[in-house]
Amino acid sequence: MSESKVTRLRPAIISGKNKMARALWSIVYLFLFRPSPRVFHVWRAFLLRCFGADIGSSVRIYPSARIWAPWNLVMQDGSCLGEYVDCYSVARILLQKNAVVSQYSFLCAASRDISSLEKPLVVGDITVAENAWVAADVFVGPGVVIGEAAVVSARASVFKDVEAWTVVAGNPAVFVKRRVLK
Amino acid sequence: MSESKVTRLRPAIISGKNKMARALWSIVYLFLFRPSPRVFHVWRAFLLRCFGADIGSSVRIYPSARIWAPWNLVMQDGSCLGEYVDCYSVARILLQKNAVVSQYSFLCAASRDISSLEKPLVVGDITVAENAWVAADVFVGPGVVIGEAAVVSARASVFKDVEAWTVVAGNPAVFVKRRVLK
Amino acid sequence: MSESKVTRLRPAIISGKNKMARALWSIVYLFLFRPSPRVFHVWRAFLLRCFGADIGSSVRIYPSARIWAPWNLVMQDGSCLGEYVDCYSVARILLQKNAVVSQYSFLCAASRDISSLEKPLVVGDITVAENAWVAADVFVGPGVVIGEAAVVSARASVFKDVEAWTVVAGNPAVFVKRRVLK
Repeated sequence: MSESKVTRLRPAIISGKNKMARALWSIVYLFLFRPSPRVFHVWRAFLLRCFGADIGSSVRIYPSARIWAPWNLVMQDGSCLGEYVDCYSVARILLQKNAVVSQYSFLCAASRDISSLEKPLVVGDITVAENAWVAADVFVGPGVVIGEAAVVSARASVFKDVEAWTVVAGNPAVFVKRRVLK
Repeated sequence: MSESKVTRLRPAIISGKNKMARALWSIVYLFLFRPSPRVFHVWRAFLLRCFGADIGSSVRIYPSARIWAPWNLVMQDGSCLGEYVDCYSVARILLQKNAVVSQYSFLCAASRDISSLEKPLVVGDITVAENAWVAADVFVGPGVVIGEAAVVSARASVFKDVEAWTVVAGNPAVFVKRRVLK
Repeated sequence: MSESKVTRLRPAIISGKNKMARALWSIVYLFLFRPSPRVFHVWRAFLLRCFGADIGSSVRIYPSARIWAPWNLVMQDGSCLGEYVDCYSVARILLQKNAVVSQYSFLCAASRDISSLEKPLVVGDITVAENAWVAADVFVGPGVVIGEAAVVSARASVFKDVEAWTVVAGNPAVFVKRRVLK
């Protein structure tokens, strides 16, 4: 069902420049992004672009969504980050066209290397492909690719790739069925 | 153990009137409900009733609980919505007598029809029957009935009905044992 | 893999004195702890100590972490409570040296006795031993001991003890592999 994600993880160090940029972003987030009215998706896309995000048209980004580093976020046309989504973009997070991530989900692009007691940071890019749907309160681990039009059911935890046009569920998420359109 | 929930889901469209009513509710929530002291359960029940909720006596509704549409909420005598519960009442959510929903749980009365790329909204009523206990950080999906005096263990994810007087756990939740009183 | 946790749970009653102390703590938390800058770990440790917590040196306690009763919290040198961790310390919660609890995790030292319809409160101490890592969005139930250098993978739910130097995952969490250092 999937290539191991482990090979895709790489060591990372958070630079002082990164921390300063995030401190600035957190102020903009707190005062301009978070309190903005729900329908102001264009405004929030603008703020993210000011911090280096690559955002297409007709995207929806809800005000309670959190983005760790906007410069690591790519959202193609029609994609969506729902309420209270945590977009922990320590590595690149890519939402392709019309990809939807529902409320409370956690896109977690970082982990720790447990083969050392110091647990150094490792990161891996996350992709949610075209027309895929990550339902509510899902966890997506580092290095994971959610395939085209795939569905990750509510509350699933995904540590491996999800094949295109399949539905997965559970913790850890497992294959449930193929997605078939009417 | 359960009748399929799927047959109970129905298409839904969020009307403009619904959105306006929720916008008004969100203001009342922000200024009058959310900041109220923990012990002011009667006050919060009053606010919910003003927006059409059907609330019995001796209910406890904690200030960080969130209710999407109060007019879809029915709470019978002695029932409880704990801290940070998300009562996503896109369809009716019914808590019968002395039903308790503990902190962080998510009563999610909506889903999406994945047999279409547009993923139209579908909804289903949720019931938590008399004396049932939904423990902490549980997910209850649309159309689900939690039977009388049943227990859903902490962190379980429930997509199918839970039989009366049983204990379920896990994701997806499965039968663990019968509940027996001393 | 573990001794049953059930034998470690004990009945508990929340006293009026406890409620008053927590009311005072919640004010201090709201105005002095929660809004403090991320790097002010020493300040937050000081506040917790004022309310009876036993906190070692070089600990990190992030501002969005929540502590129910500081007087039930013991954090040894180098331990860490991450962002949005809920430290529900109705019973004692002990983090030994260099134990790390990552963001969104929920250390839940209380449950309910379901052999009665009144569901009286039961509690059990939680221990996260030296060099153990509780990863993101993990649930740890009452009475659980996470062994030395053990790893609880992201999103796992732990209801039984975790053996030292092992990795567990899933809901309920199960053994995945032994932890081996390079």
